[in-house]
Amino acid sequence: MDKYKRNERIGAIIKILADNPNKIITYNYFSERFSAAKSSISEDVLVVKKIIENLDMGKIETVAGAAGGVKYNPEMNKEEAASFLEDLCEKLRQKDRIIPGGFIYYTDIIYMPDIVDKLGRIIASEYLHEKIDYVVTMETKGIPVALMTARYLNLPLIIVRRQSKVTDGTTVTINYVSGTSSKISTMTLSKRAMKKDASVIIVDDFMKGGGTAMGIVNLMKEFDATVKGISVLIASKDPDNKLVKEYKPLLVLESLDQFNEIIDIRPYHGI
Amino acid sequence: MDKYKRNERIGAIIKILADNPNKIITYNYFSERFSAAKSSISEDVLVVKKIIENLDMGKIETVAGAAGGVKYNPEMNKEEAASFLEDLCEKLRQKDRIIPGGFIYYTDIIYMPDIVDKLGRIIASEYLHEKIDYVVTMETKGIPVALMTARYLNLPLIIVRRQSKVTDGTTVTINYVSGTSSKISTMTLSKRAMKKDASVIIVDDFMKGGGTAMGIVNLMKEFDATVKGISVLIASKDPDNKLVKEYKPLLVLESLDQFNEIIDIRPYHGI
Repeated sequence: MDKYKRNERIGAIIKILADNPNKIITYNYFSERFSAAKSSISEDVLVVKKIIENLDMGKIETVAGAAGGVKYNPEMNKEEAASFLEDLCEKLRQKDRIIPGGFIYYTDIIYMPDIVDKLGRIIASEYLHEKIDYVVTMETKGIPVALMTARYLNLPLIIVRRQSKVTDGTTVTINYVSGTSSKISTMTLSKRAMKKDASVIIVDDFMKGGGTAMGIVNLMKEFDATVKGISVLIASKDPDNKLVKEYKPLLVLESLDQFNEIIDIRPYHGI
Repeated sequence: MDKYKRNERIGAIIKILADNPNKIITYNYFSERFSAAKSSISEDVLVVKKIIENLDMGKIETVAGAAGGVKYNPEMNKEEAASFLEDLCEKLRQKDRIIPGGFIYYTDIIYMPDIVDKLGRIIASEYLHEKIDYVVTMETKGIPVALMTARYLNLPLIIVRRQSKVTDGTTVTINYVSGTSSKISTMTLSKRAMKKDASVIIVDDFMKGGGTAMGIVNLMKEFDATVKGISVLIASKDPDNKLVKEYKPLLVLESLDQFNEIIDIRPYHGI
């Protein structure tokens, strides 16, 4: 006789899958954990699939073969993503977010775990079916959203730093030019941070001229890595002519009128 | 008649609670989401509680009153935490982690989402019953574990920076002295990053002399904040005489013998 009731196994399977997005959990694991026959687990998984998919909480994928099992695909549906991003814009349009110099204060938002969790899930949704090895970001403000993206893709995060540290060991350091000023900066990454010939995506919080993204693209060449995509939370409309051509913003900062205190920021709707 | 079966509601409630640790979800929310009577939801929650607690996945707490509802308390049980930390030490003892100068390379580990997720859950477990407003860390390497801690506590993260940026607006900047050298550095935080009279915990990846932690403690005084705890992933045994006295390490680096290539790192077991 099974030790746990069907109800209980289904609940527990959902908890385990939700805690481990995009990771294959074997039928064996569930079978041992719940002292249940594999055939019982198979039936449970069908119910789990129905629950998650009926309620639009993502997808449950079964993977056949020796390394087979069940995987929670956390893809967020487009309506939920659009409504979340519209709410976020509403918050970002508050006029007290304008900082002298024409900047917008949004650090509070991208350091809120429940917000970056959803942002990471939205970005991850774009790449769930691609073969990617790492999520790469540049310190500091982009780290939370990049980490959550990495969590939903079940991939390691790589953080490029401005200066190398003794704890990095041997590093690769490059110079790069900001896209909007002619300032030259450096970025550095430990040689052992990534394997050769990897596929990566770049995730950051903000893009203006695209200089940082271009810098990371060049740094990745030093590791023989292929950049499969660049995602940013906010891209400013200006300048039009960014250093990188292919990038996916979630939001676009159309304009910021300091005098009239109007921040025009909107979800990105493609071209 | 209820639109969803009990099975389905239970699975979905578990998913929603697991995605929102330490956050009260109202019965109303569930009732509307599943078009079910509140009495049905109450019964579902009892089953959910039984599942989560029987399987040692945390606790389900019900909160009475107008703002009442259900909360997932993600407290990890001590055996699971101990076994996870022992496995982590095993990885950290690999001799190829020794970096010239007597350092240990562990960046790969603290940038792995599934690992920092568990570390954040273990640290959060210590503070789930305290009244805390923010989790504070210093850039860069401690950010992933601090973010995950903040996620499990359902609190905003605050990242102290080495240099102020234009997007910070007005900042408070202090000098601090490293605990192990006499080097003076600065740390800075936007004035609008936190409200006055807050209670905070400090979370970081590594503590040697305690200078950074002491610096953050002093910075918090400028915001009239009370530090309720300091948690670090790894504390080095040496020096014994750290600048902060009360701190909780998960692991202790007892010694690192470069010549014989032995890293002695162990879970912390209190005094």
